[in-house]
Amino acid sequence: MKIDDLLSSIEPEAVGRDIYQLIKEIYPFGRSITGDGVRRTLDILKQYIPLEIHEIPSGTEVFDWTIPKEWNIKDACVKNSRGERIIDFQTSNLHVVSYSIPINRIMSLEKLKQHLHTLPDHPDWIPYRTSYYKETWGFCLSHNQFLNLEDEQYEVFIDSSLKEGHLTYGEYCLQGETSDEVLISCHSCHPSLCNDNLSGVALSAILGKYMKALSLRYSYRFLFIPGTVGSIAWLYTNENRVPRIKHGMVLACLGDRGKSTYKRSRRGNAEIDRAAAHVLKHSRSDYEVVDFIPYGYDERQYCSPGFNLPVGCLMRTPHGRYPEYHTSADNLDLVRPESLADSFLKCLKIFQILEGNRKYRNRNPRCEPQLGKRGLYGALGGQQDAVADQMAMLWILNLSDGSHTLLDIAYRANMDFRTILAAADALRDKGLLEENKE
Amino acid sequence: MKIDDLLSSIEPEAVGRDIYQLIKEIYPFGRSITGDGVRRTLDILKQYIPLEIHEIPSGTEVFDWTIPKEWNIKDACVKNSRGERIIDFQTSNLHVVSYSIPINRIMSLEKLKQHLHTLPDHPDWIPYRTSYYKETWGFCLSHNQFLNLEDEQYEVFIDSSLKEGHLTYGEYCLQGETSDEVLISCHSCHPSLCNDNLSGVALSAILGKYMKALSLRYSYRFLFIPGTVGSIAWLYTNENRVPRIKHGMVLACLGDRGKSTYKRSRRGNAEIDRAAAHVLKHSRSDYEVVDFIPYGYDERQYCSPGFNLPVGCLMRTPHGRYPEYHTSADNLDLVRPESLADSFLKCLKIFQILEGNRKYRNRNPRCEPQLGKRGLYGALGGQQDAVADQMAMLWILNLSDGSHTLLDIAYRANMDFRTILAAADALRDKGLLEENKE
Amino acid sequence: MKIDDLLSSIEPEAVGRDIYQLIKEIYPFGRSITGDGVRRTLDILKQYIPLEIHEIPSGTEVFDWTIPKEWNIKDACVKNSRGERIIDFQTSNLHVVSYSIPINRIMSLEKLKQHLHTLPDHPDWIPYRTSYYKETWGFCLSHNQFLNLEDEQYEVFIDSSLKEGHLTYGEYCLQGETSDEVLISCHSCHPSLCNDNLSGVALSAILGKYMKALSLRYSYRFLFIPGTVGSIAWLYTNENRVPRIKHGMVLACLGDRGKSTYKRSRRGNAEIDRAAAHVLKHSRSDYEVVDFIPYGYDERQYCSPGFNLPVGCLMRTPHGRYPEYHTSADNLDLVRPESLADSFLKCLKIFQILEGNRKYRNRNPRCEPQLGKRGLYGALGGQQDAVADQMAMLWILNLSDGSHTLLDIAYRANMDFRTILAAADALRDKGLLEENKE
Repeated sequence: MKIDDLLSSIEPEAVGRDIYQLIKEIYPFGRSITGDGVRRTLDILKQYIPLEIHEIPSGTEVFDWTIPKEWNIKDACVKNSRGERIIDFQTSNLHVVSYSIPINRIMSLEKLKQHLHTLPDHPDWIPYRTSYYKETWGFCLSHNQFLNLEDEQYEVFIDSSLKEGHLTYGEYCLQGETSDEVLISCHSCHPSLCNDNLSGVALSAILGKYMKALSLRYSYRFLFIPGTVGSIAWLYTNENRVPRIKHGMVLACLGDRGKSTYKRSRRGNAEIDRAAAHVLKHSRSDYEVVDFIPYGYDERQYCSPGFNLPVGCLMRTPHGRYPEYHTSADNLDLVRPESLADSFLKCLKIFQILEGNRKYRNRNPRCEPQLGKRGLYGALGGQQDAVADQMAMLWILNLSDGSHTLLDIAYRANMDFRTILAAADALRDKGLLEENKE
Repeated sequence: MKIDDLLSSIEPEAVGRDIYQLIKEIYPFGRSITGDGVRRTLDILKQYIPLEIHEIPSGTEVFDWTIPKEWNIKDACVKNSRGERIIDFQTSNLHVVSYSIPINRIMSLEKLKQHLHTLPDHPDWIPYRTSYYKETWGFCLSHNQFLNLEDEQYEVFIDSSLKEGHLTYGEYCLQGETSDEVLISCHSCHPSLCNDNLSGVALSAILGKYMKALSLRYSYRFLFIPGTVGSIAWLYTNENRVPRIKHGMVLACLGDRGKSTYKRSRRGNAEIDRAAAHVLKHSRSDYEVVDFIPYGYDERQYCSPGFNLPVGCLMRTPHGRYPEYHTSADNLDLVRPESLADSFLKCLKIFQILEGNRKYRNRNPRCEPQLGKRGLYGALGGQQDAVADQMAMLWILNLSDGSHTLLDIAYRANMDFRTILAAADALRDKGLLEENKE
Repeated sequence: MKIDDLLSSIEPEAVGRDIYQLIKEIYPFGRSITGDGVRRTLDILKQYIPLEIHEIPSGTEVFDWTIPKEWNIKDACVKNSRGERIIDFQTSNLHVVSYSIPINRIMSLEKLKQHLHTLPDHPDWIPYRTSYYKETWGFCLSHNQFLNLEDEQYEVFIDSSLKEGHLTYGEYCLQGETSDEVLISCHSCHPSLCNDNLSGVALSAILGKYMKALSLRYSYRFLFIPGTVGSIAWLYTNENRVPRIKHGMVLACLGDRGKSTYKRSRRGNAEIDRAAAHVLKHSRSDYEVVDFIPYGYDERQYCSPGFNLPVGCLMRTPHGRYPEYHTSADNLDLVRPESLADSFLKCLKIFQILEGNRKYRNRNPRCEPQLGKRGLYGALGGQQDAVADQMAMLWILNLSDGSHTLLDIAYRANMDFRTILAAADALRDKGLLEENKE
């Protein structure tokens, strides 16, 4: 099955439901950049795609960075003087600052406050905080709860461990005809936060599941990695594979109600950038394409100047631009099956362009070939599609001088890539085009 | 006489009248892509320019195409049961589908209707239809007449012939100083339709007549050819001449009330494209410059990727954008002498740029030369023209580094080419410029 | 002291006062393109900077030009029949057309009128007129006075001399680390006109005074020259030095209330053009950047095609765009200390960019280096400056591939150059950047 067939057979509702269900399933796990929460998550994903699990030992040097100690947590709470667990890790893993060191102590409210984090502007939400590279501890809670804390002694308890261990990530390479690769990368290090980035994790897994059976031109490499240190570790341990990456996208924040946003690679005009912009432009819904900036997700690493890979980032509302970002309100209500399905289809359409994009050479370059005698004109009477198909053929014949790709032609003709692709297939089948593989 | 002198001596009213009269004279002939209607038309044009007539035999292969059989028609009609010629070729040659095969038969209204063409949206107009490459027959009529046809037996009669013969076209090469050529191409295959394209045919002939006596830098080649197959045949039989074509325009639809439209060549930034855009921009009337698309007139062939000639298309309202297009309403009322004269002058002004455009080298490139001591400053007192002339001189001196043409300078200075040309002539005459012929 | 230190220590009010005072001091002198008025002016400037005075003899050929005779004037007036000096050089040196030949004659009003110049649109103002290259004489007066002249005999008296002498100009080269030069050029040939161009003259002198003590990368060459013939003479006599000029600005009309205007060099995208545009853009006040045109001040000569130097022009309201231009109303009321100080600071900020602009190479080009472990992250808590500094570091690391300058990065990041410069210094000090001197 080709990707074109997949696209015409797919049921958006079913896909949206599948992705949403997977998010729901992995939502409760307490993930961080290392630890068992990640392992449990990857185990679930294995039900969808044959994931290979990698473990990199703490202390391993990866470029300028070092794999940190592994962090695990069993329980944590703050108890008031009546022994009540008033801040309780069991009710939300966001309550504990990620990478908090173990502690078990009684302290005054004043002392405790130095370790409490709240969001005064959103007094009902619990913030999400981490401290990966500085050993400390802390609790997060709603500002309203914070305001009601009484001036008494509190028992602070965190049953965590920070020890030599491993950084865990998942990898799935879907083999295509060639060893040229398309990279799909998502960060899987956030705890119970849905849009950022269980949406990217679940969507990538379901993408892999649906694409598994396809006959593909490119190989597709799916990475489920902790943010920053994960992509750095992968790049470090796979430097020999890096030149194979011809296109790539970081997938994040794909389930909210916002419009689709594509952030260009550092190159700015890579094929993936033009393919993604084309799909968004022809999606008949609002969208935004933004330039690369060296802040965001793992595209920061893929696009560092020593790699400068053609890797962009597909999102809906970008990180930091929606109020629920990095709070307990980024929950199962924020992400919607419809948005997830829409993002999923856009990914597939982008891949469809990558799969189908080629440079052809018009074999009758002097004057137009006579299309009528080859049955290439649509039925008389001027049906809309027939007119578009004929224009697509004329554009392809005119621009197929060996230097324009079909995507170039789609842009120049201002037509959907799929119309151009279908017309090119028809012309090639009649012997009017030959591929320019240079 | 130089083209500059012609432009200053020309009387627009007289030119408009001349072109209009010629349209009127050739309007009645029943032209098609082959046949005697074309021959009669070219015979008339010979009264204006020394046209060479070419005849290419049916069956000749020209690139991917074959010269079709020659079609001629003497008479045609549909008679009702009372023997009345209710659809009559003698009243309008549009009534018969071009290239209709001969027929003489009685048939029911139901059968006849399969061969009738109307325009329901313009119920009083007769459409123009052709069937060059599929042997069939048909009649065109107004939709109102069609609705009134009674359900009876009709005698259908077409006295046409479709036989081995020739494709006929006219060619006139006006020799200039160099063998570099400017191509002017118009399609002469439409029957009684005025704007499309007797306007182009008549305007080209009158252009040739007025330019005959000029002393010209370029040679100007005028082609009067049937659309598509005519330009293909010319390109095929003149492949050795093609490299001489340095600039060119297809002339079509030049007589309606609409604003001038220039369609760029496939190259998009050829000298002809910039010259035409410059003339339209400085014409003080509304205009449009549009990008090349591989649909339209014979620029499709000239701009096929194997030739990629710098040939654009000058029109007023483009084909298909005015309701009368390809109907009996494209008649002598649609075209106006004023529009024809305006189009004619724009052609001449475009040629004036081609003739005058050169690269100069400032012979005093270090600092400005002193213009005052050479009498190159206008009268004191700041007359508007003197200021413009001085600015033109300063621009030319500043940009004549051997890489900018006068047209480049006109664009950069945002001044009319003629002001720049006059200033350059003055500077050159004082020895301040030398031509860079590289 | 570095230019950065100067900029942070400078007091705008004091600078504005200094420049204004200097203008006031040299305002009364009767300057022209040659003569003692220029010498007196340069003598005053010597109190600020160690000016070298050059004298080029009349008759010297400089490219296409010849150094004119030297013009001096002691007195001039027009007396009425009652012997009253009704037009009196002693009250304003603008009353006499510059380069007027000596005369002493009685004549009728009718004859006299042929030598009188007024401004009917501004009837109270005296125009400024010159006749350098045509030997004649004339008086300028207000139109109101002109209208009141009685029809009688007038005594016309000009005690001027036009003899073999010299063209005088001042030059100051402030030596930097390298022999690469920044050219600062101002025309010093106008008599009692403040904005055009005592503002440029005085501002340049005070710039030199303030910069004298700096430790600079570039050498700065200040030219105080008569317009046109002065820059031509300098270029002619310094052709060997011209290749050292890496950047430059003509300074003129810098004291009026108008917004700052930068006119690009002929190159259009030279470093000086981008530096000046950057400073104006980040100045938080209205501004304009305009393309080069071959009219204006001495940039006409520096940007002639044989030199094509990267020299722009910094102004406030450009010449000819304010009504007081070249009239007696361009006086001490038109220029303001605030505007002068603002122009001065913009010059320094432009030089700061030239001084600080470099290409770096990220020494950890593969993935981001870990900034945290080097203490390069600002205090936690998200202060605005800390966020900007971090973004600046990420931009520099991402774009420092050896091809982008810091100014390129400032543009791409849309951040003030100074923020980028400070971040680059911090990164370089931590060993994360090395300069690419290629």
